[in-house]
Order: sequence, then structure tokens, then C-alpha cells
Amino acid sequence: MGRLTRKGEVNLSGVFGIFSKNSNSVSQIIYYGLFALQHRGQISCGIAINNNGFLDYHKDLGLVHEVFSKDIFDRLRGNMGIGHVKYASSHEEQTQTNTEPVVMGYKKGAFALAFDGSIVNSNELRDKLKESNTVLQSDLDAEVIANVIAKNQCADLEDALNKTLNEIIGSYSLLLMTNDMLIGARDPNGLKPLSLGKLGDDYVLASESCAFDAIGGDFVRDIEPGEVVLINDNGIKTISKNFSERRPCLFELVYFARSDSFMDGKSIYRSRIEVGKQLARESQIDGDIVIGAPDSGIVFAIGYAEESKIPYAEGMIKNRYVGRTFIQPSQELREQGVRIKLNVLKENIEGKKVILVDDSIVRGTTIKRTVDMLREAGAKEIHVRIASPPVLYPCHLGMDTPSKDNLISANMEAEEIRELIGVDSLYFLTLEGLLKAIGNNGFCKGCFTGEYAVEEGKK
Amino acid sequence: MGRLTRKGEVNLSGVFGIFSKNSNSVSQIIYYGLFALQHRGQISCGIAINNNGFLDYHKDLGLVHEVFSKDIFDRLRGNMGIGHVKYASSHEEQTQTNTEPVVMGYKKGAFALAFDGSIVNSNELRDKLKESNTVLQSDLDAEVIANVIAKNQCADLEDALNKTLNEIIGSYSLLLMTNDMLIGARDPNGLKPLSLGKLGDDYVLASESCAFDAIGGDFVRDIEPGEVVLINDNGIKTISKNFSERRPCLFELVYFARSDSFMDGKSIYRSRIEVGKQLARESQIDGDIVIGAPDSGIVFAIGYAEESKIPYAEGMIKNRYVGRTFIQPSQELREQGVRIKLNVLKENIEGKKVILVDDSIVRGTTIKRTVDMLREAGAKEIHVRIASPPVLYPCHLGMDTPSKDNLISANMEAEEIRELIGVDSLYFLTLEGLLKAIGNNGFCKGCFTGEYAVEEGKK
Amino acid sequence: MGRLTRKGEVNLSGVFGIFSKNSNSVSQIIYYGLFALQHRGQISCGIAINNNGFLDYHKDLGLVHEVFSKDIFDRLRGNMGIGHVKYASSHEEQTQTNTEPVVMGYKKGAFALAFDGSIVNSNELRDKLKESNTVLQSDLDAEVIANVIAKNQCADLEDALNKTLNEIIGSYSLLLMTNDMLIGARDPNGLKPLSLGKLGDDYVLASESCAFDAIGGDFVRDIEPGEVVLINDNGIKTISKNFSERRPCLFELVYFARSDSFMDGKSIYRSRIEVGKQLARESQIDGDIVIGAPDSGIVFAIGYAEESKIPYAEGMIKNRYVGRTFIQPSQELREQGVRIKLNVLKENIEGKKVILVDDSIVRGTTIKRTVDMLREAGAKEIHVRIASPPVLYPCHLGMDTPSKDNLISANMEAEEIRELIGVDSLYFLTLEGLLKAIGNNGFCKGCFTGEYAVEEGKK
Amino acid sequence: MGRLTRKGEVNLSGVFGIFSKNSNSVSQIIYYGLFALQHRGQISCGIAINNNGFLDYHKDLGLVHEVFSKDIFDRLRGNMGIGHVKYASSHEEQTQTNTEPVVMGYKKGAFALAFDGSIVNSNELRDKLKESNTVLQSDLDAEVIANVIAKNQCADLEDALNKTLNEIIGSYSLLLMTNDMLIGARDPNGLKPLSLGKLGDDYVLASESCAFDAIGGDFVRDIEPGEVVLINDNGIKTISKNFSERRPCLFELVYFARSDSFMDGKSIYRSRIEVGKQLARESQIDGDIVIGAPDSGIVFAIGYAEESKIPYAEGMIKNRYVGRTFIQPSQELREQGVRIKLNVLKENIEGKKVILVDDSIVRGTTIKRTVDMLREAGAKEIHVRIASPPVLYPCHLGMDTPSKDNLISANMEAEEIRELIGVDSLYFLTLEGLLKAIGNNGFCKGCFTGEYAVEEGKK
Repeated sequence: MGRLTRKGEVNLSGVFGIFSKNSNSVSQIIYYGLFALQHRGQISCGIAINNNGFLDYHKDLGLVHEVFSKDIFDRLRGNMGIGHVKYASSHEEQTQTNTEPVVMGYKKGAFALAFDGSIVNSNELRDKLKESNTVLQSDLDAEVIANVIAKNQCADLEDALNKTLNEIIGSYSLLLMTNDMLIGARDPNGLKPLSLGKLGDDYVLASESCAFDAIGGDFVRDIEPGEVVLINDNGIKTISKNFSERRPCLFELVYFARSDSFMDGKSIYRSRIEVGKQLARESQIDGDIVIGAPDSGIVFAIGYAEESKIPYAEGMIKNRYVGRTFIQPSQELREQGVRIKLNVLKENIEGKKVILVDDSIVRGTTIKRTVDMLREAGAKEIHVRIASPPVLYPCHLGMDTPSKDNLISANMEAEEIRELIGVDSLYFLTLEGLLKAIGNNGFCKGCFTGEYAVEEGKK
Repeated sequence: MGRLTRKGEVNLSGVFGIFSKNSNSVSQIIYYGLFALQHRGQISCGIAINNNGFLDYHKDLGLVHEVFSKDIFDRLRGNMGIGHVKYASSHEEQTQTNTEPVVMGYKKGAFALAFDGSIVNSNELRDKLKESNTVLQSDLDAEVIANVIAKNQCADLEDALNKTLNEIIGSYSLLLMTNDMLIGARDPNGLKPLSLGKLGDDYVLASESCAFDAIGGDFVRDIEPGEVVLINDNGIKTISKNFSERRPCLFELVYFARSDSFMDGKSIYRSRIEVGKQLARESQIDGDIVIGAPDSGIVFAIGYAEESKIPYAEGMIKNRYVGRTFIQPSQELREQGVRIKLNVLKENIEGKKVILVDDSIVRGTTIKRTVDMLREAGAKEIHVRIASPPVLYPCHLGMDTPSKDNLISANMEAEEIRELIGVDSLYFLTLEGLLKAIGNNGFCKGCFTGEYAVEEGKK
Repeated sequence: MGRLTRKGEVNLSGVFGIFSKNSNSVSQIIYYGLFALQHRGQISCGIAINNNGFLDYHKDLGLVHEVFSKDIFDRLRGNMGIGHVKYASSHEEQTQTNTEPVVMGYKKGAFALAFDGSIVNSNELRDKLKESNTVLQSDLDAEVIANVIAKNQCADLEDALNKTLNEIIGSYSLLLMTNDMLIGARDPNGLKPLSLGKLGDDYVLASESCAFDAIGGDFVRDIEPGEVVLINDNGIKTISKNFSERRPCLFELVYFARSDSFMDGKSIYRSRIEVGKQLARESQIDGDIVIGAPDSGIVFAIGYAEESKIPYAEGMIKNRYVGRTFIQPSQELREQGVRIKLNVLKENIEGKKVILVDDSIVRGTTIKRTVDMLREAGAKEIHVRIASPPVLYPCHLGMDTPSKDNLISANMEAEEIRELIGVDSLYFLTLEGLLKAIGNNGFCKGCFTGEYAVEEGKK
Repeated sequence: MGRLTRKGEVNLSGVFGIFSKNSNSVSQIIYYGLFALQHRGQISCGIAINNNGFLDYHKDLGLVHEVFSKDIFDRLRGNMGIGHVKYASSHEEQTQTNTEPVVMGYKKGAFALAFDGSIVNSNELRDKLKESNTVLQSDLDAEVIANVIAKNQCADLEDALNKTLNEIIGSYSLLLMTNDMLIGARDPNGLKPLSLGKLGDDYVLASESCAFDAIGGDFVRDIEPGEVVLINDNGIKTISKNFSERRPCLFELVYFARSDSFMDGKSIYRSRIEVGKQLARESQIDGDIVIGAPDSGIVFAIGYAEESKIPYAEGMIKNRYVGRTFIQPSQELREQGVRIKLNVLKENIEGKKVILVDDSIVRGTTIKRTVDMLREAGAKEIHVRIASPPVLYPCHLGMDTPSKDNLISANMEAEEIRELIGVDSLYFLTLEGLLKAIGNNGFCKGCFTGEYAVEEGKK
């Protein structure tokens, strides 16, 4: 999802937790788990560990390999821990303060919390907390939730959490850890993903199943929408089923997740191949080669090529070395033709009828840039095939897409967009076709239809 | 070329230089050029600038986006400059001292030097320099050459360089800059690549043509084997033709270069596709899917699939976030199944007859690991196809391949290797097939045949 | 105590703790307290805070102004906390791991520990812990003590601490904090200092009273030898009196402490002045000026001058900017006369009969260097007056002085030393004179007499 | 001069240069020289070296021990070099860009420049440079001068420098280095100091003679006002005498310089003792002790005590560990009594008639703070004695004192100040007394009289 990954545009995070009966050094396992989830967040990361009752942690801005070192693992010893990688959503500053897990003291000790999602009534909850003189230090929904839990001084933390989950509205998957248990919770609609795995005899929770592969573990099952599981010395049990209606995020499944993950019973890779094939069936056209916009369009393009029998080829080479501190070219240099991330494989494009497949069009700026590069390289014809319907509505539940003003499809017909980006044809997959390809699972399709699983709050 | 890129195993570097008549801020252009050449070296980088007669520079260990910042470009102002990215070859420590360009004072001022290659008589030259009391501070061939130039106190620097080039034996492409000219030189056999490009009216030199694309420039021509070009206010002229026999490195062309580069008249991408096709023709076998070992086998696999009509698929997902400071799993964790860089797309592999294409086998350890992962994922059959002949001889001219003891093909027959790595079939492309696919250009084929363009020195 | 402050030579630390009823931001107060105690340790520092039940902390190598920043204080919020500054003693590596406070989990939660002192049976305790499979990560006595406390699973932490204090032998003052109390303990002989202060209504504990001045607080009293005090919401109470024999360290009082501190009822400054006067009475000699060796001899010199009526003058200027990363001159440069920390005020020295006062002679190297500088500057006569008796025995209780081989007075008579350092006269204060000047308080005088308050263990 | 050293308030720098005939490693010598001059500037520092024709350099914000490391000295090899330490004056941002030496290319090569002083017509020169399209990157007068030199394309650099010195008006001492010579220049009035020394056979230039002591060298003589000396292989010669009227800065001599330096023939220490004695003669009063405000008043106080026969004592202890990143207490904490840099020695002050000597009063805030602390500590009487006349006028020539509005003596009579700071008596030394004590050397006394050696420009 190239177009969506600009900083501050996606409210995406990855969470990972493990409870081990035997090992006292789970922090490095969490590290590899987070590393497998790095595509879900590159702004900051953190790990909290239960070191025999004392919750120690380390978190900072940066990628997991930048934030953690051998020294830190020597310090972060314990049998249980949770980790987090995050994008900064648009309403969060990218500061050290806005990193997770959040670690807090409460009446009976301490707990740590890692969160992926978007709470639509977080402002309301913030106001309530302020009234009771709670000073919040960050922009994090996670900090709000942690403080509500701490305020809800119930008999035990499970009750406090359950009470809190009844107060928060939105999409989420969250992990909570005390000195003797690990809890995982998924929102009542299952908008956000959360999976259960095993590593030997130990239980593991992760946003995506690819994290289990990374640590040599096995996928067990998805946590159900609304389910809250508690893992401790006695094993795992479901302590609450807050189920509403199954409405997983369609975008999450088809566009965000790593293609080697399984989510709610589906292979992401296979789903994308099928979507690509459906796109080919709906919009077959004569062409010399099929190429994918890197990296988001690649798998769809392979499916498209398979179905259409038109050869798949690499149309562009992506430079893999762009880091967070990379100096972007000025507008002037850009106009002089400085190209840093992508280069066209002229050999493949020149004089060819090119079918360019991408996953979606949000603002329209990226696809325009890609098309321009293909034109310069001498493409004879360019046919753009988009593996999703037009994105017509902004999302407040996690995708954090731009306002309607900035969604090109909310303001232009496909034909106008075709003209604007200057291609020979442009086709958006139909919603029916999309659902046909991946099977309807009750998905929240709000960004395409305006009808959301959860309505927007005053955030 | 996954298997060769371990630090210290490849003596590869990238060089980039520009002489501008008008611009006074070429340093950022060099930055983007080096960024496009980052695949040629990730240990260190540097830029030297001619700021109106004063040679300023900045260089350090790290990737270009790590080493350079806006502040540094504000400082590095000038109309002419050279840059360098490097791997540390096996005989160089990875220290700040071993970074390039080398900047030196000599009788008439200062010059900067950036170097890609391997000097076989460098030890001999070092000894001579020591005899004349020169204190060398680094392990760099570049420093040796710079000091020989400085010692050769000729009428002018061009003569000193020419005299020096007659003294050094090996593979190289080098850039040298004083306060009024930029010189580029390629070794007499053209073992190392060097291309000439233009950016508007300004001349540019780079190890690979992809760097010209990156800055919005155009490829003009390859520098000829043995050619020395001088660029100054009067334009460009060839000041020396030290031509021997054209013997470009076969590995460089087919395996090292970026696939969007052109080298000695050939498209790298197209060459690889043709090699993949030839491999398919030589070793056709029944299979369900063709996959490439990431990333080195991908293009060959696409070619193989095209020729064999067996569908191309992604077999493994590569995690793109591994950085220099990444903590590798211990042997114990590795045995427990921790997989960090690659994950198999089980969906594609399970129950399938898989044709796995890779560029080469050097030690044999990487292919074994890849095959094991495919087995675990449930591949029904695995057929390995290698897009090069067996590597039988170590290279002293730049590839810096391991000693014969560590070259698996120097010690085992193909059938033995097949058994060791546990696959259903294994095939190496024939040298004839390779040359047929890419056209014979006089290549140095030393690693396959033991006959080198330049014999080994006492290095 | 210039001569003793070389890294690894003094086992000195500073501790500071505060329990506040109202404030939720004590971390900055601790910062200023530690800053006032910085002379007691410059290798590392740290602060642990009770944030509403959750013990958060930050510690690292470096001075307090280097280790702490505004960001960290925003994070370290809480009503109670302890801090630590330390020298690395000779048996500790200077690593991040060897920093305090030590924070640990135990059966009922977490606690933090900060320690100043030397446990003579620490090796024995280490062995016991290892037998029960405790993995120790540092060289710290504090970690040993913390683990013994955690093992001593008594009804409550107070009991566990008391039981532990009965097991450890040596010199110490230590602070221990849980989520609802702050404990301070001083060894049964009072070898190490610990003071109680108030800041408004809140109680404060510190190694030296100067820390109370720094935060605008007031000195209340010394913690008694063997006393353990507990501070919580109910105020302060003495929970244990483990008193043995009052044997405070004579060196601590007279040479280590900051001159503006009060310790066991005595003003450090006034004590030093009196010692200087006594020295003058014992060894009166004709001279033009009295100078102190910077900085350790200054106050003694002022006292000497006052008593002898010979004018006090500054004889040397100390460069205040030497930092931890300062590059020391090579032996060669030293011999060429490179002087970095001190410069003689020639104007004051040339042609003069100089009385040079210093606090002690340990190895003899520093006094020699100082004398040489005065000679070069043209001193006519140099008379050295030492404000302590000869140091004849190494100390295992905190001073961590060198072995007997390296103690010059253990190997040479005063006259031999005089000759060696090349001065006109040399005089050591008598032990009687020293005690007469400061009043006998039962002091441990082991370094002068060989009789220690606590005998050496197998450390 | 405690009161003047706040960042941005003093336009002070230190310069150091060496030309060696034999050594090829002068950079470490420069390091020790700069270290001795660190009191003249703590914001940034830098060294430029002539490495056999190539001018290499390193400079950054920070103290010399923070900015330089062994690695950098391995790189900065050469026989000749200059160094710089600086305060940021009020019109300079504290950025990496505003560091010296400035290194520049010009028609015939490169040169480096280090500067101490204040150019009153720098804005005018800046405007001229801008007209000729010179882009200036810093706020530095040094960069302006360097560019004017480069523009003045004379037959040789000496002429260009001389021409430039005729264009610049102000106070300065500057060092300029090319690949074959080192030049030192002092302004026509000798407002800024510059001394010549020798290290073996090699010549050294430094702002103050204490730098020669630090490197084991010898003071030779002061550079004369308006003198320009050139040092090269042929030795030293005076190439220009641009002498005007000798008007050295009175403040520089008496208050800024290190007390172990000699300046224009005078010992700084001895001068200050004499001033202190004169102050005692002018304002004798009955008292129990004489104390100096740390550190600026100490030597004056020693002189005062000597003359008055009232015992000198330490009244306050200064904490030596405040670093650049130290977190200052908030106003609230300050009011609660948090004292970080200074602590009163109560023992010495309580119940005493205290004579407090300081060098000057500028804003009046510091002396007020000091007096308050003495009062709190129980001083019976406080008598302030100031070792300079009232500062009535701001200085544009280096002291960079605040505007008249902020000079307390420009707005209040002594009696009003006495009342404001709340002391029993206050006395300022007379100008006559000051000159009598140190001998009249034509000093610029502008800050006391309003008559400056050089009139203010439009800076």
C-alpha cells in the first residue's frame, strides 16, 4: 500500500506478546516478532518485560533494529513480555513520549499496554480523565485506555479491563500484561486483527501470523471479534466475549497485511492473486506486459498476468536503501528529473503496451508520478488497473485516510482521473468483484460505501 | 547476489563524479548518484567537493542516508565533486579510516581519489612507499595509489597519474579530482565498469548507468578499457588509451550490477532474462511453479518461467527492514526455527513441484537454508536451477570470493551437492550456454575456468 | 583528594532519596541533590522513581548533567525516588550494567536499591546466590544485596532487609524504595555517612548534608551507625538499631567530603582549617607563601597560613574543563612539558620560599609532579606539609587504596620520600595532631594504623 | 568575570597557531593549546591543519575535549595548523555553521582563518559582498573577512590580507594559514591580545601566554598593536606595522584573561592582587573575613585581605560539574531555594562581618543573588567591594555588554544599588585607583567613560 504509508497517514500498529513457562529470556523472541511486523509501523517501537514482578521496558523512535541492542536484551530479562511497532497517526506527534507499550502503576502494582487501533470516543474519555485530574503525557489512545483501566478500581485487573472495554468505542486489538498474566483483546467487530500462536508449549499473540513463522512458532487461530483471552500459568482461557457483528477491515486484509500472513482464515497472498485474476476478468485488454506498481501492486499484477496470459515483467526497480533520514530532493531537483526510489526498466517498457496494476488510488499523486515515469521511458500505451473500487470516504477507524477533499475519487469521475494522469485506459475493480474474489466475510467497506462498522466520534 | 554480499566478501565499490560549469551545489546530485549505487557498497561512503579551490569532504561508515545530512550539504558547496560507496573487502577493517574518497595534499595542491577495484601488486607498492618513509594510515588501495601519484612528481598531475597507472596492476575504475579537473580511468582490461553520462551540459561519471537515471541525466557511453578521460572547463577529452585486451568481469555484468543498468552496451535486465531462458532450455523439467531465490534469482526466474511456460510465483517474502545493527539470532534460536530475513509463502509451496532458480552457488550454505525452508513448507519436489556454471576458482580481482576450500563446487560434484542440499534435481548452466545467452564480450571467466585477465600478485 | 580520585581507585558513591506527600515530580529534586553529590562519583548515575506503584528509572554512564534531560524528567514522574552517583571501584568494569539504582522484581512487587560502600563478604554471598541459580549481571555489591533481599522471602520487605543486613559485613549506607516506602540504612560502625534532611514537610536522605542546601532544604540529623529508618505516609520511624561501635571513616570526614557538608556533627571546612592550623603548629617553618595543592590541599593551606601568619597565595591554576573524554598527552608529550590540568603562577613562585600543603601522599607520583612544576617555575625553597599521617595500609572498606606495594609510605621513610621528590623539607601530620584537631570520634584509622573497624573478607 | 560569561554576552574567542619545521603532528599540540584557552570560549572549537598542501579541518559545537578524539588526530596530520575556541556573541546563533576556523578556497588555493574580536563595519562589508553575489553561510565576522581577502585578488595573499585589514575596523587578533605560511595579526590599537611563543625551534601564536605553558613552550613577546607577522620555513618576520594608538582593552587585561597569563608585559595575577590591595586602601572597613565571589572575585579578595590584614576565607563552594546540557531549575524551584552552582560555607559566614569582593557589577542580578545567600547563611554584616569602577556604557568592541538599559550603574547611583541588593556598604574602585594599581598603558576604558578606542559602526 505504497500510497497510504506516508507518515501520519495510517493509524496502523503491530502488537506482539508472549507468555513463557520456562524461558526467562523472551525479549529477543519479541524482537524477532516485532521485526516480522515492522511493515505495520516504522515510527517507533518498544518492548515491556515482566522481570519477576518488576516491569522493565525500553522504547524509542526508530525501527526495531535501531532501537534495540544486545545490552538492552541483557537488561530486559523475564518470562513474559509485550512489544509494539507503530506508525504515527495524523493526530500524533512523532516524539519519544508517543511510544508504546505504555507502562503504568495502579493500586495493585503495574501493567503494560500495547495497542493497535483507533478509539472514536477518545476525546470524551480524555475530558473525563482531566476532570478527575489525570495528567496525560502523550497523544496515545493507549495512554487513555491505560488510565481508564487504572481509574476503574475493580476487584481485579480483568474486571477493570472488561469495564473499560465497555467504555471505549472503535477498532482495536490490544495486549495487556501484569506481573502474572498476559491478556489479548480484539474489538467487538474484529476490525483489527489479532492471532494466537504457539511456540513450543508457550502461547503467543500477534497482529499477524507471519510473526509466528518468524519465531519458528505455529499459528493456532484468530482471536474472535470481541474476544478477550487471558494467558497465565494455568494456560489460556477466554474471559469475555464481547462479540458484536463480524466486520473486519477490508483494507486491512487485502492491502495492509503482509502477503505471507493468514487473517481470519484467509491467505493474504492467495486473496491478492484472486483479486488480480478477477481484475483481469473484469477489464481484460490487449497488452504486451503486465507490471505491478512497486511494491503494493506486485502480487495483484502476478494474478492479473496469470489470468490474462499476458507476460508478467518487472517494470520498475525499487531502491531498497531509503531510510528515515533520507534527504528528499527539492521540488527543483524533482523537476530536473531526480528519481530516488524508483527507476524504470526501460528495456521492458520502451515501445510496449503496458498494463500497470496497483492496489488503490487515494490522492492520485503517486499513480501520476508512476505513469509519468513510464511515459518518459517510452511506453507505447499505458493501461491502469486498480485492484480496488474507488476510495470515496475517509476512514476514522484505522486507515486514517485523508479528508474527502483529498480523496481524488470523491471529487472526480474515473474518466477525469484517466485524463488527469494521462493514460490510455483506467479501470477500478468493482466492489462485487472484490468480494467475489476474496469471499464476503462481513467486511467493513466504509471507505468505499460510507457505511462504517462504527460511527465516527468527536475525536 | 545474496550469497556473495556478506561483509568483507566482495571487494566492490561504486564511484560517482560530476563537473558542472554552472551549478555550485553538486553535492546533493552526488548524494542521489551514490544512493543509486548503494547496492555496490553499504559499509561506508563519502563525498569530496571542490569549493572554489578548497577540497572539502565528508565520509564515514554507514549508508548514504545515514552519513549525510542537510547541514553537511550546506557546507559541501562547489562545482565539482566525487563520491564513493564501498564494501569492505576481506583484507580491510571496517573503520572510519578505511573510507573514501581519499583526500591528499601534494606539491601543487590537493586532490581527491575514489576507487573501485583490486590492485594485485599493492603490497609491493606499499613496501616501496614505506621505504621512502610514507606513513600509510589505511588498508585502502586508494591510499596507496594516491601516495604513488603524489610521489611521482611529474610536470603535472595527469602525467603523474599516467605514470602511476603504468605501475599498478589489477582491476579498477577510479575518479581523481583536483581544483580544476575531474579525471576518470578504467583498467586496461575493462574488468571494472565506468560509464559517462550527461546532466544538461555537465559531464558525469559513474560505475553504473542507473546513477544517471537517478539524477535525471542521460547515459552517453562506456569508458573504454584502458581509457583515461579528463573533464574540465574545456569539456571532455581522452588523455590516454592504455588499452590491453577487453576482459570485463562476467560476474560483474551478470550478477553484481543493478538490473536497470546498461554495461558495455548490454541491458543487465535483458541479459538476465536471456540467461534464465537459456537455463530453461538446457534443463527443462516438469514443475508447478518457478520461483526465484530473493533477490538474486528473481529476474532469472522470470526468464525461466517465460521460456518454460510454467507460472512464475513469489515463493518467499523478504523482510526489507534488516539494518546494519540488526541482532542476528543465536545458533540456538536459529535451530528453534527463528527466521528473520525470509519467510516462505506456504500457500504457494505446499504440495507443489517447485523450480527454484538462483544466480550461483558459492559456499552452498545459503541454498541449503532456502531449500530447507521450502521443504518445511511442504514442497512436494524441489528442482534447483543455477544461472551460472559451478564457481571453481577464487577471484583476486574484485569478487574476492572465498578460498578454494570454501567453494563447494571446487570440492564436490553436482550430484554430491544435490544430495547434500537435499533436492530432487540440481542443474548448473553451462559456460557455453551463459555466453550464448549474453553474447561473448571477451569476458574474464576466471572464477569458472581459472584463467584470469590479470594474474594474482602477492597481495 | 586529588591523588585518590583516579578512576577505579575509590569505591565511593553518593546516594539521595526523597519521599514527598504532595509533589508528584521529585525527579528533578533528586537531580539537583545528585548534582551536589557529584564529587562522590563521576562514572555513572541514575534515578528510580515510584510512579504510582510502577517503578520507572533511568541510569547510564556519565555525569548527572549528561545522563538526564528534560524528556526523561517528563517520563520519571512520581512522589518518591532514589538516586545514585558512583565511582567505579577497582573491581568493577565501567559499563552500563554497573550502574545504580538496581531495580528488581520480587515476590510482592518491585524495589529499587542505591548503595555506597564495600561489602567484605560479597564473594561469599555471590557464591551462595549462584548455588541457588541466581544469575548476576553486574559487578555491583548492590545487585548482590538486592538478590539476597529478594531471596529472604520474609513476611515483609523490612524484615527481609533486616535479615539481609545481618548477613552483609562491611561499610555502607543504602537506600531502598518500594511502591510505598523509602528506607535508609547505615552500617553498624557508621563507616559510611548518611544524613536526614527535610524539604518543607518531606523527608530527604543523602550521603552528605550539602545536598540539602542544594535543594533548599534543611539538615535534620545524621542517621546513626546501624540505624535503619523507614519513611512512608505516616512519617519517619527508626525500625532497627543494629549499632556496633561508632567507627566513622577518618578519610571520609577529612578528605572526601565536600567542605560545605556537616558530617557526624562536624563542619568539614572547619575541621580542615583546624587540621591546617595544627599542621602549622607542628611543623612551623620560615617561608614566603603558603600554597595548597589544587584542589585537595587548599583549605588546609588556608588554615596553615592563618596560624603561621605567612601569606596564603594561589600557587597553581587548575584548568576546569577537563572532561571524561579528554585525550591525555602521551609520555613523550609529557616529557616535552605538556601540562594540561595545572599551570604554575610563576609570578607567585619565582624566587620564593614556598610552603606547599597537601592532604595526603598515597603513591607519591602526584606530589612529585607538583614539586617538579614549582621547581621549574623557579621556587627558591619548597617545603611540603602533609595534612595526614603516612598512609601505610590499603583500605578494603571504601577508600579502595592501592596495595601496599604501591603505597609509598609503606615502603619508604619520610626522609627517603623527601629526597625522591626533591624538596627542602617534608612533614606528615601526626595522628595525635590530626585527632586533636578534629576531635576523636572513634574513627576507623585503618589506613594509618592497620587496625580496621571491619576485617577484610575474601572479596 | 562571572557576570559577563553568560552565553551570547561576551564576544570572546581564543586563537592558537603553530608552524613546525620538523613535526608532522601538530594537531595534538593545538588541542592542548586550545584547552588552555578554553576560558575564552566554550561554545565551539575547531582545528585546521596543513597536511602537505591539503587543508583538512574539524570543528563543532562543544568543548575541546568533547569535539576532538584520537581518530580525528590520526586524520589531522600536518606541520602547521590553527585552532579556535569561541563564545557566541549576541548576534550569532550557536550552530555548527558558526564555528571556526573558516576554511576557504580562493584563486590560488585554500586558506584557513581564526578570529577573535569584533568588526564594527561588518554589516557594511557584508552588503558589499552580497552585491558581488557572495553567499555568506554564517554570522561570523571571520567569514566576512575571509571573503574580503578572497575578493581582494592581489599578487599574493599577504597583500590581500593587508588590503583587507585596511578595510576592516574594530578589535581583533587573527590567524591565517595557507599551505606554506602562518600569519598573525593584531588590530591597530591592540584591543585584542596576541602573543608569540616558541616550542623548541618552532613558533607559536596564542591569545594568551598560558597556552605556551600548557604545551611546554616559552613566551617570547606580545605581538604589537597593528603588527602582522608571517611565519614560514624562513622563520618569522614582521610584514606590516599598521600601528595606531596603543589602546588595549582594560577589561580584557584585568577581568577576562587567565590569571597565569602575561599580557602586554603584565602578570594578570599580580595585576589583580594590586587592584585588590588598592581597593582595600580606598575602602578599608572593619570586618571579620574577606571572601571573593567565585571565581571572578577570588584573586582580588586575596589582595584585599593581604593589604587589610583581615583573614581571607572561602565563603562559597562552587560546584564544578555544571555542563552545557545542565537543566536549570525553574523559577518555582529557584524560589524554593534550589541552589545549584554555589553553596555558602555557613560555618564561615554565620554571625560574621563579611567583606565580599567581586570584579564588577554589570546587571546587578548576580551580586544580588550572592548577597541573598550570604544573608540566609546568617552574615551579620555584608560589605561589598567592587574591583572596578561602575560600568556605565555598553561595549561594541568585544565585551558585548548589554545595552545601557540593562547596565545597573547607568541607571542607578551606588547608594541606590546598595539598598537594592541589601548590603551594609558598597564601594566601587575609582578609575584612578585602578590605573594606579596596574599602571596606565593607554587602555581603552570605554565601558567606564564612554570614550572608545574605535567608534561604533552600524553592526
